[in-house]
This record gives sequence, C-alpha cells and structure tokens, in this order.
Amino acid sequence: MKFGVVARRDKVEALKLAYRVYDFLKVSGFDVVVDADTHKYLNEFNEGDVLPLEEFDVDVIVVIGGDGTILRVEHKTKKEIPILGVNMGTLGFLTEVEPHETFFALSRVIEGDYYIDERIKLRTLLDGENKVPDALNEVAVLTGIPGKIIHLKYYIDGGLADEVRADGLIISTPTGSTGYSMSAGGPFVDPRLDVVVIAPLAPIALSSRPMVVPSSSRIDVRNVAMTREVILAIDGQFYTYLSPETEITVVRSPRKTKFVRFSREIYPKYTMKIKSRF
Amino acid sequence: MKFGVVARRDKVEALKLAYRVYDFLKVSGFDVVVDADTHKYLNEFNEGDVLPLEEFDVDVIVVIGGDGTILRVEHKTKKEIPILGVNMGTLGFLTEVEPHETFFALSRVIEGDYYIDERIKLRTLLDGENKVPDALNEVAVLTGIPGKIIHLKYYIDGGLADEVRADGLIISTPTGSTGYSMSAGGPFVDPRLDVVVIAPLAPIALSSRPMVVPSSSRIDVRNVAMTREVILAIDGQFYTYLSPETEITVVRSPRKTKFVRFSREIYPKYTMKIKSRF
Amino acid sequence: MKFGVVARRDKVEALKLAYRVYDFLKVSGFDVVVDADTHKYLNEFNEGDVLPLEEFDVDVIVVIGGDGTILRVEHKTKKEIPILGVNMGTLGFLTEVEPHETFFALSRVIEGDYYIDERIKLRTLLDGENKVPDALNEVAVLTGIPGKIIHLKYYIDGGLADEVRADGLIISTPTGSTGYSMSAGGPFVDPRLDVVVIAPLAPIALSSRPMVVPSSSRIDVRNVAMTREVILAIDGQFYTYLSPETEITVVRSPRKTKFVRFSREIYPKYTMKIKSRF
Amino acid sequence: MKFGVVARRDKVEALKLAYRVYDFLKVSGFDVVVDADTHKYLNEFNEGDVLPLEEFDVDVIVVIGGDGTILRVEHKTKKEIPILGVNMGTLGFLTEVEPHETFFALSRVIEGDYYIDERIKLRTLLDGENKVPDALNEVAVLTGIPGKIIHLKYYIDGGLADEVRADGLIISTPTGSTGYSMSAGGPFVDPRLDVVVIAPLAPIALSSRPMVVPSSSRIDVRNVAMTREVILAIDGQFYTYLSPETEITVVRSPRKTKFVRFSREIYPKYTMKIKSRF
Repeated sequence: MKFGVVARRDKVEALKLAYRVYDFLKVSGFDVVVDADTHKYLNEFNEGDVLPLEEFDVDVIVVIGGDGTILRVEHKTKKEIPILGVNMGTLGFLTEVEPHETFFALSRVIEGDYYIDERIKLRTLLDGENKVPDALNEVAVLTGIPGKIIHLKYYIDGGLADEVRADGLIISTPTGSTGYSMSAGGPFVDPRLDVVVIAPLAPIALSSRPMVVPSSSRIDVRNVAMTREVILAIDGQFYTYLSPETEITVVRSPRKTKFVRFSREIYPKYTMKIKSRF
Repeated sequence: MKFGVVARRDKVEALKLAYRVYDFLKVSGFDVVVDADTHKYLNEFNEGDVLPLEEFDVDVIVVIGGDGTILRVEHKTKKEIPILGVNMGTLGFLTEVEPHETFFALSRVIEGDYYIDERIKLRTLLDGENKVPDALNEVAVLTGIPGKIIHLKYYIDGGLADEVRADGLIISTPTGSTGYSMSAGGPFVDPRLDVVVIAPLAPIALSSRPMVVPSSSRIDVRNVAMTREVILAIDGQFYTYLSPETEITVVRSPRKTKFVRFSREIYPKYTMKIKSRF
Repeated sequence: MKFGVVARRDKVEALKLAYRVYDFLKVSGFDVVVDADTHKYLNEFNEGDVLPLEEFDVDVIVVIGGDGTILRVEHKTKKEIPILGVNMGTLGFLTEVEPHETFFALSRVIEGDYYIDERIKLRTLLDGENKVPDALNEVAVLTGIPGKIIHLKYYIDGGLADEVRADGLIISTPTGSTGYSMSAGGPFVDPRLDVVVIAPLAPIALSSRPMVVPSSSRIDVRNVAMTREVILAIDGQFYTYLSPETEITVVRSPRKTKFVRFSREIYPKYTMKIKSRF
Repeated sequence: MKFGVVARRDKVEALKLAYRVYDFLKVSGFDVVVDADTHKYLNEFNEGDVLPLEEFDVDVIVVIGGDGTILRVEHKTKKEIPILGVNMGTLGFLTEVEPHETFFALSRVIEGDYYIDERIKLRTLLDGENKVPDALNEVAVLTGIPGKIIHLKYYIDGGLADEVRADGLIISTPTGSTGYSMSAGGPFVDPRLDVVVIAPLAPIALSSRPMVVPSSSRIDVRNVAMTREVILAIDGQFYTYLSPETEITVVRSPRKTKFVRFSREIYPKYTMKIKSRF
C-alpha cells in the first residue's frame, strides 16, 4: 500500500501532523510521497519522497487541512485517488476525522476497514473544450464587475430553463450544496443523489428559483449582454475571465472524487455540520 | 380502447366539454364511462355509462379541469390509469392540453401517438399502517391550530435529519415541488428525478433548510410536543387530525401516476408555467 | 411605589421566585398585589393582596416567565404599566434580567435608576370596531384550514398594496419582527423605529415580498374568497374566527407597552438573542 | 424659472426627446441649460446653453432616461435640484412620467402644479473623510474577487450588530430597497420612511438577516480579513477599491434628492412596479 501526504500550508499544526503521519507510515514500512508544496513549508521530509501533486500515484492520500486543501488536491491530482481528510479547517464538510483520530484512522485504512464514498464532479466545457478543472463543489458563472449584474440564459438539455439578471449563476453538485449554492438559497442535497443544483445569485426577478436537475443533464449557459465579461469560478479555487461570446457547457464529469469513510452515516452527522455554520 | 371522462364540477364549460368528449368517443365507437360526480352536475350522460371513480377500469381517463380535479381522480381511482388532462384551471401544472386542443389530442391517443409520463407518489404510514391516500404532490404535517407552531423531529433512514419548530413540514414529490413546497422555500425539481423534497414551513430557526433526499428514503416524522395534535394534509385534498403520539412515516409508494403526454419537452414548457404564477 | 407580581404558571421555579419577590417587596414596605392566576398555582400569598390582572393599578409589574407571560399581562391589564421582565422562558426577547439578577434589578427600580422603553402596539378593528386585544408582537390573518390557502388583498392608506394567495398575512410591530414575521421571511427591525412589517406567509407568488410601512398607515385586509373563514391570531395568544366579509383594519394603537430597562444598548444585546435561536 | 435637460446617451429616442423638450422650453421663453455629455451625443443644442452637470444651477432638471440616468445626475450635480424623470428605461422606479406625457408634465411644472418628493441619501465616510458620492439607492461593500467571500463586522451606533462571511453587505435607502437590497433578500420599504436597510449578500450563515434601522444610525463596517481588498460600489455607478484597513462609515447625508411628482400615491403605483420585474 502506498500513501501520499498533503497539508494545509498556512497552519503549523497541520504541517507538523503531516510530518508525524509521514514518519508513522515510513516506520510502518509503507511507501510514502509528500506534496512538494507541503515540503516547501516544512522542509523536513526526505527529498526523495517529495513529488508535485500532479504526479501522485498512490492508494490513499492523507490530506490534513480543511475543505480548501482537499479541493486543491482534487484539482491537481490526475488520478482518482481516495482521500482521507483530517480536519484542520473551520467546517470540514469533506474531511472524515479530527486530528486526534488520525492514527486510529490510519490503522483502519491499513487493515482495510473502510469504504469508499464516491462523489460526482462537474466538467465545464468552454466552446466545447475541456480546459478547466472539474468541480467537486460548484461551477459559478459570476459578474466580472462586483455589483454589476449579468444577463444570462441557461438551457437544460437544449431547452430554455430560465433567463436571469443576477450577480451570477451557481451550478452545484450535492457535495457543493452546503456551500456557495446554499448561500444563494439552494437546498441541502443528500450526497447520495446523482443531481445538480442550479441557483441564481441575487437575481433581480424574485421568481428565479433554485432548480434541481438530473446530473446527466447538459447545462448550457449563455451571456446575453455581449459586451460584458464574466468570471468562471470553480470550487472557489480556479478563476478565469471569459469573453462574452464564450459558450459555457456544464456536464457530469467522467471522473469522481473518492473519499475514505469509516461510517455510512449521513444523518445526523452531515446535517449537524450545516447547523454548526451559525 | 376504453375511456373514462371526469370534469371539474364547479365550471359549466368543463362539464359541457366533458359531454362533447363523451359524445365524440361514443360516436367513434369506444366504450366510455363517466364519473358519477360529474354526472350529478350535468345530468345528460347515459345512466348505463355512469360509474363511481373508485370503479373505473379503463385505458385512459380524460380529465377536464385543473390540478385539483386530477388530484381528486388520483385519490379515488384504484388502478394506475393514464390521465389526459385538459386545462380548465388556473395554473395547470399537471394538465397536458388546452381546451381547444382536446379533440386533436384524443385523435392522437386513439392512434397511439403519445407516451406515458410516470410520476412517483408518496405513501404515508400512520403507526405503520396504510390508511390514507397516496400523495402525488405532497404530504404536509401541519399545526392543528393556525399560528401555533409545532415541534417536530424528522429522520432519514433512521438518522435524525433535523428538529424544527415551525408551522409544519412539507414532504413533496418532484411533481409537487412547484406547489406548497415552493411556497415554503423549496426548489424546483425536475420531474424526471426520483427524489423527495422536505421543507419546513415558516420555521423559527432560520437555519432549517429545505432538503432533497432519495425517494427510496424512509422519512419518519415525530411530534415532540406530545400535547398538541397535528393535521395531516395530502395534496391539499385529504385532511385528518393525528394524535400527538402517532408515528408518521413517509415512503415512496409502489403506485405511480401516469400522464398521457405528447411531448417529452420539460424546458421551457414546464418552467414557464412556474413563471406564470406571478 | 406600588408593585404587581405575576409568574408563569407552569414552572415551579417561576412561582417560587414570584413569592420571594413578593416577600422582599412587602418586607421593604411596599404595596404589592399578586395576579390571581399566579396565586391559584402557588397558594401562599396573602389573600388580601390578590387581584385579577385586569384590576392592576401599580407603578411597576414584575413578570417572571417568558415572552408568553409578558404578552398575557399586556393583553389583560387595562393601564399602561411598566413591566420588569425576569427571564424564565426560552428566548426572552422581551424580558430584561435573568433570575439571579432579580433583586439587584428591584433595588435599581426602587432607587429610580432605570428608564422606560416604550414600544408601539397594533390595534385591530373588525368592521370598524375595537373588540380584540392590541398586539405587541403581531396581528396574523391566517387560513382557517391549515394547508388551504386564503386569498387576500391588502391596502395601505386606501391604496392596493398587494394581493396574495397564501397561508396568511402577518402584520408585525418592530417588537414582533423577531417572531412570526421573521419566520415568514420578514426583516429584523430596530425596536426604536415607528414602523410596521407586513409579511405574507408561504405565498404562492414568489414576488410577494415583506413590506415595511409607517406605523401611522391604515392597513386594510380583505378576504377575497368570500366562502372561506379566516383566523385572526393576536400575539399567538388570542384567537378568533372571522366570517369572510369581516373588514379587518390594523392601525397603531394609542396604547404603548412600557418596559423597565437598565441599559439603552440594542446592539449586540438584541441581535445576539436572534442568533441564539439556532 | 430655469430648466436643465439631460438625456440617456445610448438611446436616440431619449436624445431626440431631450431636444424637443429643450426647444419647447426655449420657445416658451425659459432659460435652459443642457448637459455637456448629452450634447456630445446629439450635437444640436446652442453651444451657449451647454454646461457640465457639475455646474447646473437651475430650478428643475428634466431627465430623460432610466434610473441609471437619474443616478448619474444625482452623483454629478452639486445642488439639490428637483428632478423630473421621463421614463426611457426598463423599470423606472425613480421616473415620474412616460414619454408621451412629457409636455403635459412640463406644463404642470410651469404652472406650479406639482409637489416635491424628498428622498434621503447615504453618505459614506472613508477613514472619516467624505470623498465619494452620496448614495440615493445603496452603498455596497463587496468582495474584490467575485466568488471569494469577505469577512465583515458591522456596528450600529457603536454596538456590534452582526459579523458576516458573505459576498458583501448592502446598505440601502428606502428608495434603493427595490434594487440590489431586494435581490439580497431585503424587504420593500415605504419611500416615506426615514430608515436604512442592511442586507448581507449571499451570507454563509443562514441566520444573517436583513435589518431595518433608523437612518440616524451610524453604521460602521470593518473588514476582518485584513489581507483582502473590498470594493465600494455606490448606486451601481461609482466604484472604488478599498484597502483592508479602511474604516467605512455610513450615515444619512445632509443632502436629499428631490423629485417632481404629480401624485402622492404610493400604493398601488409603486408596488405594481415591483411586480413588473418578473
């Protein structure tokens, strides 16, 4: 069994725990690689074990940090590698264990006493081409100028679904339903579902409602006001400006994100995390 | 091919159109039965063709009215009979054609040029027993005293999902997502999806959000304040008071509702109807 | 200086504290009257000091309980008597001190070291007549049948403001803005403001928005569907059914509610109580 | 009586109507000045009558365009000059008459048959200094990076009102309550009220609610995440980036906006315009 280790770079405790995980796994006789960025912030790993995330090819990646760190791993790795998230963030919707449970969790992984929770991702095509990272949480089409509304039409499987003047449009997976989509008024979606939420952000027309559609839908977004650039934001991590005529299409990605889980429990575990946002 | 005919009872045009449909089908050589209630309001059908809805056993029921009339048919018929809805209501989310298209639609049905749109329904078990009609739109657990909140807990597949103090809790099918559930803040749900929306009605805690869960979920609702009766309202048609200790369980019904459709188009046809509510 | 004492009847601690307050004030040489209902639940007060709330004519009423107890006092007393609220409820938006601060608070009142916080109330006229209690929180016009929408028009100073199909309409003071009105989507309103919030409850039309209007406005509510009774609910305490043709008018009451306060602080004291609802 | 004339620059009909108004007033013997920007787009006015908006000193300005044109006039003129708005925009919340009523409206103004509707404005102080235009609609403090939340605290009269992680915070006048504030979930506010709405934009915490406070309040906004710039957007017209440590204070401006009105009617005139947004 081969492991990868990644830590949040701006938190000393996370980096230190990463080192202890690395050390524990090495001592236990496993192959371990460490993310080059993590190494840059805590220069104590063996040089020979350091690799850029893009080249990780392991059985499990131990990610120590918050949801942001997990999203960074997801955007950079090329293979569908199961992630074990150790929560050193604020909310930890995606992480599985707390820091004090780390070594107990690693033992269970080593013994094979876990299961894999697969989550759908969204692929964004720009003029038909796949040039940007897949989204685990959401694809947001946003106004390029904060406070200036954009005028969008969006289509489900070729049929006009709605036309909105808004700050943006958020297209979210079930995983992302507790994030930006919820701030925009979207519902909580059970992570087992194979659906997509489309939520307008601060729409002028109060009748524009969040929609839930099959994840097999093809969602086309068109910028009606051809003079205004929009921003494409993926998982709050990847940003790019798009010229007004860019054709934006969102579909389910062939890739999934895999999480190491020790319990299949969703309720109340998951819903209680939403409550804790207040 | 055998037809049934039902009309909205409080609208003369609906009753008259029902008679013309009956006459057309008889003249064309088909067996036709007419709903006894409809006959009561327009006493012109052959007595021999009049039957209570409960005994209908036909291939297609032509329903002339609004969504309320369709819900009445659904609650009373015992078999899963395809419904062709002619819109003589206000919104007509469930109806398929406008009155002037009635005979063209009948021709297409006779020629077999249509398809069947199946919609899931919800079954409510009270203390484990199936004593109330299935819901095509929603099951609402409401305060027995308007304006006095009730205190409910609800569970998804046995796990506590949320605890709410609210005017009620609305458990909706995709079909019902544009109805009471939406007034309570729920999302629009694509009718092709096999999901259920759970939306609290005017909850005290602003963190109580609508949820979307698999329709295969078992949803248990418990009345925490044991001194207060609740009302169970199904599709805004069937009402009953429940003593506080009644165990309410909502699951997907083995029955479906079948609609005669001439187009598989959902967008913009369906979404535009939502817009027209304003 | 003359005091009144009232306690929540369903909580032994509240009744006991009421007795201690009564005893302390008597021993200190003040005239004290005790609410007859309170006496019924704790039969230890001097019979000669027991009076129905309706006959209270004192300088300050010490109310031990939650917001519900304060609302009961407000509905029954005939004079505008300042209320010192001791929180023995869940939220305590209206109460001023916690139980352990009771005697310190009484000392300050005796020394005159307090100020009076005046809050507006709403008067409801039925067919032009004042037959129901004034509202400190809200006047709610609700469907008589839970789950069956009512169809209302409402007018501000004679001009049509909106027409709604909804579960009801909530007309709230700033004091009530954190209650039922907020559950219906209304804003938080600074208690110093002389305004009224009008919020539809679960309206069908998503464009029906809460409104904030001057408290000097005359608000007329008309039941459009003349066949359906509505319920008038005042402060969640007083309920009455109204025939469809009843003309409902809501205006600012000439009466105000007076609270004994020791601090003029609103933020964060008040806003933090809203947060604690979660 | 002296008039000013301003038109929307991107609409030929508006420019043409501006010329006809100018001509009519000149022929009728009045002094008329024309906005230099308008003249740039329709080069037919007497050079001697052309002035920059900043130097306008007239009795009434006739503004032909939409709300955007009126906001531009408000931001540029130095004196409190009554505005007669002729609607050549989409919604026209601020305009008073339709194009075909222009000359009838001018006659009434000449005869003195009108009244002045005064609206409050908000002044924004940056580190205590008044360097930016007053807002007729709203002051928005927005994330500098669309999709990246900002972390703000805001204080009412020195007391902490709320702490939000959101896309921004919108501080609106009653006039602006139908604009950006409403898209963020704020209520409709009667234009006669002297209040301010504070609405968080897409907040993470669902408990963050719009607030209505006295317009005499001092509202202080602080950027908690000191590493992130925010954007200050005034009336969707004026934009500036603010360094994280900038102290933002919003108070009622000593200036008001004055509109020429022919009717004091608010309901249903005003509320129907909100409905027309759908």
